[in-house]
Amino acid sequence: MQKIRKVKGGVVSAKGFRAAGVAAEIKYKSRNDVALIVADRPCAAAAVFTTNKVAAAPVVYDREIVRSGRIQAILANSGCANACTGDAGLKDAQLSALATAGELGIDPSLVLVASTGVIGHRLPMDRLLAGMKAAKAALGRTGAHGLAAEKAVMTTDTRPKEACVKMTLGGRTVTVGGMAKGSGMIEPNMATMLGFITTDAAISPAMLRRALVLAISKSFNRVVVDGDMSTNDSVFLLASGEAGNAPIVRGGDDFRDFADALSQVCLSLARQMAADGEGATKFVTVTVRGAKTAHDAERAARAVARSSLAKTSWFGRDPNWGRVLAAVGYSGAALEDMKTEVFYDGEWAFSRGKVADAAQLERLGKVLEKDSFEVIVDLHLGRHESSVYTCDFSLDYVHINADYTT
Amino acid sequence: MQKIRKVKGGVVSAKGFRAAGVAAEIKYKSRNDVALIVADRPCAAAAVFTTNKVAAAPVVYDREIVRSGRIQAILANSGCANACTGDAGLKDAQLSALATAGELGIDPSLVLVASTGVIGHRLPMDRLLAGMKAAKAALGRTGAHGLAAEKAVMTTDTRPKEACVKMTLGGRTVTVGGMAKGSGMIEPNMATMLGFITTDAAISPAMLRRALVLAISKSFNRVVVDGDMSTNDSVFLLASGEAGNAPIVRGGDDFRDFADALSQVCLSLARQMAADGEGATKFVTVTVRGAKTAHDAERAARAVARSSLAKTSWFGRDPNWGRVLAAVGYSGAALEDMKTEVFYDGEWAFSRGKVADAAQLERLGKVLEKDSFEVIVDLHLGRHESSVYTCDFSLDYVHINADYTT
Repeated sequence: MQKIRKVKGGVVSAKGFRAAGVAAEIKYKSRNDVALIVADRPCAAAAVFTTNKVAAAPVVYDREIVRSGRIQAILANSGCANACTGDAGLKDAQLSALATAGELGIDPSLVLVASTGVIGHRLPMDRLLAGMKAAKAALGRTGAHGLAAEKAVMTTDTRPKEACVKMTLGGRTVTVGGMAKGSGMIEPNMATMLGFITTDAAISPAMLRRALVLAISKSFNRVVVDGDMSTNDSVFLLASGEAGNAPIVRGGDDFRDFADALSQVCLSLARQMAADGEGATKFVTVTVRGAKTAHDAERAARAVARSSLAKTSWFGRDPNWGRVLAAVGYSGAALEDMKTEVFYDGEWAFSRGKVADAAQLERLGKVLEKDSFEVIVDLHLGRHESSVYTCDFSLDYVHINADYTT
Repeated sequence: MQKIRKVKGGVVSAKGFRAAGVAAEIKYKSRNDVALIVADRPCAAAAVFTTNKVAAAPVVYDREIVRSGRIQAILANSGCANACTGDAGLKDAQLSALATAGELGIDPSLVLVASTGVIGHRLPMDRLLAGMKAAKAALGRTGAHGLAAEKAVMTTDTRPKEACVKMTLGGRTVTVGGMAKGSGMIEPNMATMLGFITTDAAISPAMLRRALVLAISKSFNRVVVDGDMSTNDSVFLLASGEAGNAPIVRGGDDFRDFADALSQVCLSLARQMAADGEGATKFVTVTVRGAKTAHDAERAARAVARSSLAKTSWFGRDPNWGRVLAAVGYSGAALEDMKTEVFYDGEWAFSRGKVADAAQLERLGKVLEKDSFEVIVDLHLGRHESSVYTCDFSLDYVHINADYTT
């Protein structure tokens, strides 16, 4: 079992990558909104995109480009999603990639693009390309460069998000680091989220893709903010190979270790996203165990995490296990209420028909005061378990989304 | 085609029914919380209940009792759902029915019970039965009696809800009237809602059930408030036969007319429920048309109505068609964004890639100012259409549900 160490770092921590973030007035003034991530050489690459049938132009563009498995640069912007913009939007995406390649002196087939923000507006191409050039001039390998890039992809996020781990593969130190933007619309499959992950591991594009799909299923796809899913979701993974490890080209210990490290980075970014959900005041892990089937555990946990009534009760610090149980009840999962238990962290709220008394309610109240807790439903019907990460539903969620204009 | 007239009225408008509502301190002081509906004679009866696997005790009890198709009285209370209360709760439900039957001097098999309110608490039987006795003493046939009963089943509802229609069947005037409570957790299948409908039509229990299932599919099951579904949902329908029409015992014109009238009553109650959704400031009809399949139309409309992002945009008076389209995009329905149009009432917001300009945005702004409007998505892929009724998602929704304690 490989020892994986969490370290401070992000998208420029692995060898062979530079990044920058600049303010280009895509939508707002004086706010970073164009990010550029550039590898010293073409990298092995993989990416996973939204399953929303309304896919934004950059997603449509990237899906084709990334098939080659070789990428060297990613241009990203916030403030405009370039979604529902038709052929013109697709040409804008293509032109952005072409211009970036020209500026970097590399082949256009090595450049991906990503956008996030308001749907239905065309990209302000002049400002975007000016931003891209400024970003190119600002590229660097320090934490400050990574942070500038992290800030440039934020929309309603309140905090930049990065994560990094190191491990040893065949005597070589391998780093996996990344950055992400999250916030609203995160569910069921990594929505309004962009993830950018880099590594210096030597690994084939096919194995990279396998590791990424695996990692996403355990991380980004387990985050629920409000049950919406966006048109722009993308997670990118570039591998420079500069760690000098024996290239990973098939399954085995090295692949498993690499996949574990990647999963840890993705999980950390996903948890940061849930904790920073729009208006969130609490980070909540919902775990359903004792389910009859894996599918039951999964849909029950998602139903609770998606329940507006459960989420508002967490905001109100109310151990309202009735709403939790009602959500499991309509999820479709097998359930016998008189066998079921509901816990908040270690404290029981409902146990096979028994309801918390005043003393127990006081203990539950203390759990609900915390910024972070786990809601556990034990169905006592089988051995299957599933967890999802979410947040509460606050007044600020409504403020943010009622005021965010088209 | 039978002419159906909307008239003022409710659960006591049809011949042969009395009702009452009294304050019994089930949870709060000085607030009606026990309702009693009594027919002069045993009625043909049908009922439809929640599909939540956590079914409250009264639902479990009623499911058995109503199989006979003959019912004379319904006792209902708010303030306590009698859900997740195990065998003891089931005995409380049974005891309530027995005591009501005793007080009315009728067979216990003719009495149904209904509860709504907080989950996990036992019914305060002394107060409930005292309330039942007071309600029996207060029974009457006037609109005021109906209104008192309507108020007694309200929880977070802000308005009592009633509806009534009259028509002629074979020269006889037939009345269908009803009352309901709705508010939070209404979706996908008539959740935290209680409906009580009475008619003086002569009709067999089997045809009554057929008409009720049909009416619910067009009304209560088309209401979305927050995507949650409760443990207590029930719709009851009693037919006294006192109109003296030729009994409806099979399909045909009379059945169709009766079913239409019943659907109108249910639809009116359902629309009142959506308009009075928790914290609602706007009543919104979501229509998806031009869908490839009926299932596509249905799931697309529900996805939009359930989208927290779309619902907060309506609260914010923002014609954010991007969120509407994104919801259709993840609903699973077939969609080609460049063929799609989005309207708010008669005003277009997005049309096959074209986006509303400033002048059009101003017209859209006026629609969004209204208390009630329709969001229409035309997919231009087929002939199928579906509408659901919902409301916006406001600051008050969060207030109400964060403060509502266990």
